[in-house]
Amino acid sequence: MNENPQSFQRLAIIGLGLIGASICLAAREHGAAESVAGYDASADVRKRAVALGLGEITETAAEAVAGADLVILAVPVGAVGLVAEAIATHLAAGATVSDTGSVKESILRDVAPHLPKGVHLVPSHPVAGTEFSGPDAGFAALFEKRWCILTPAEGTDSTAVGRVAAFWRCLGSKTEVMDAAHHDRVLAITSHLPHLIAYNIVRTAEDLETVTESEVFKYSAGGFRDFTRIAASDPVMWRDVFLNNKDAVLEMLGRFTEDLSELQRAIRWGDAETLESLFRRTRDIRRGIIEAGQDEPEHLKKP
Amino acid sequence: MNENPQSFQRLAIIGLGLIGASICLAAREHGAAESVAGYDASADVRKRAVALGLGEITETAAEAVAGADLVILAVPVGAVGLVAEAIATHLAAGATVSDTGSVKESILRDVAPHLPKGVHLVPSHPVAGTEFSGPDAGFAALFEKRWCILTPAEGTDSTAVGRVAAFWRCLGSKTEVMDAAHHDRVLAITSHLPHLIAYNIVRTAEDLETVTESEVFKYSAGGFRDFTRIAASDPVMWRDVFLNNKDAVLEMLGRFTEDLSELQRAIRWGDAETLESLFRRTRDIRRGIIEAGQDEPEHLKKP
Repeated sequence: MNENPQSFQRLAIIGLGLIGASICLAAREHGAAESVAGYDASADVRKRAVALGLGEITETAAEAVAGADLVILAVPVGAVGLVAEAIATHLAAGATVSDTGSVKESILRDVAPHLPKGVHLVPSHPVAGTEFSGPDAGFAALFEKRWCILTPAEGTDSTAVGRVAAFWRCLGSKTEVMDAAHHDRVLAITSHLPHLIAYNIVRTAEDLETVTESEVFKYSAGGFRDFTRIAASDPVMWRDVFLNNKDAVLEMLGRFTEDLSELQRAIRWGDAETLESLFRRTRDIRRGIIEAGQDEPEHLKKP
Repeated sequence: MNENPQSFQRLAIIGLGLIGASICLAAREHGAAESVAGYDASADVRKRAVALGLGEITETAAEAVAGADLVILAVPVGAVGLVAEAIATHLAAGATVSDTGSVKESILRDVAPHLPKGVHLVPSHPVAGTEFSGPDAGFAALFEKRWCILTPAEGTDSTAVGRVAAFWRCLGSKTEVMDAAHHDRVLAITSHLPHLIAYNIVRTAEDLETVTESEVFKYSAGGFRDFTRIAASDPVMWRDVFLNNKDAVLEMLGRFTEDLSELQRAIRWGDAETLESLFRRTRDIRRGIIEAGQDEPEHLKKP
């Protein structure tokens, strides 16, 4: 018997990329589950997962979830429905299913219909990541001091919600419960739109006829390199985010381009005051983020 | 007599913000000049510069440049004309004037007309910086391994150009000579447009009615925080950059919004293929930047 009623007996992770692999490592390091099983659709990834010692790596998703009291889907949000369908009949009675997707309304929509009665669905979104993908990129500290947002549907078993929250806190995260639709709007502006813009500017730069790629590389320290880091994130994961959070992303994008037109006009007409007053306002936001503990001042990272 | 014919007797820095202060510190650390004098229009900044031991801090720009064989203007690009006018009659015969601005055609346009015959103008742009401003933010290592672009007008004394290049290399930079107009196009895409976009998205986020500022802070780790770091840069410096590199910035901005419209359309119509193939392309750019040594992979910065 597990002595800690909050922790899980058997954790199953479906999808062993950066996030899935990091959960395996973190869960074992912090003793968040008695045993950890993992499955990935790619045989190559499974082989790496074995070599990295991520846990018991199974040949099918069904084997991984068999007997698991917590199942976390760490696959692109476009794939959760298929995975849920594949594992549904193999889930233990009373098990809890969670995920790690950056869009949450679509998780409720795509996963819930497949789950048998008595299985709890507690969608979660660890707001953490790096520019790297795959099991080799995983590390146990990924979730430390990061927020993890839970978006259970109304009426979800509160014990299940509490245990999933405790799981993420055990991995070092701070947790918050939020309505799925609100989550999708918040993340559209804090994450999805920044990624879309970063992807876009990197492409715009690449397409220039008069500036060579080598020049773009060499002089990227002026701001561009931060965008390229964001734009190096996993292509399939991000494709699915945009397709599954369409309405919120399009709304934020509309506001962004509206605001950008005002700046464009200020530059064209030499409106110094508009530019300077806007640039002053944005500094305060940065200070707020440092105070909120979501980043360190850059100079602390310098030699 | 200075034994190294490449180094300077007296270096004068006008403007003691992040860049000016860092030049003072780096020049002294590397012995790039026998003595270092500095001036800033703000009495508060001069006081801090004295306390920080940046060099001989003078009460006027004229005193700082008196007897200097290298004068570097480290002020916002909109102010270089006024500074050049103020120091013109005090410059030593045969002195070299340089600067640190992020726009270079306007430097040639605004500074050259004021300089007496026999004084050389070698504009330079150290592509380096942090989100912080002011003398306290300066540090000697700021220019190490960063590019510094020189944009002398045709016919500029080649010895003067060579000595300014040697000066920056002495501070740890790699140097490149480039046509001023080409520089302004390259930097418009690698630096100016990224800053404009970062400023803009931070404002868009702040203006949202349904997402609180506290939520934006908390969940910024998803991408937004990189933009806020860029958008915390000095407001006056950036105002001047956009006003003085108007044509190139407006051109890049036009291309960017054109490309963004294509992505917007792909999201609206669920065009998965367009999104994924673009996201795959941008990864390669990131790899190029890491190979060009302009950034480290993020995981190397992790614990």
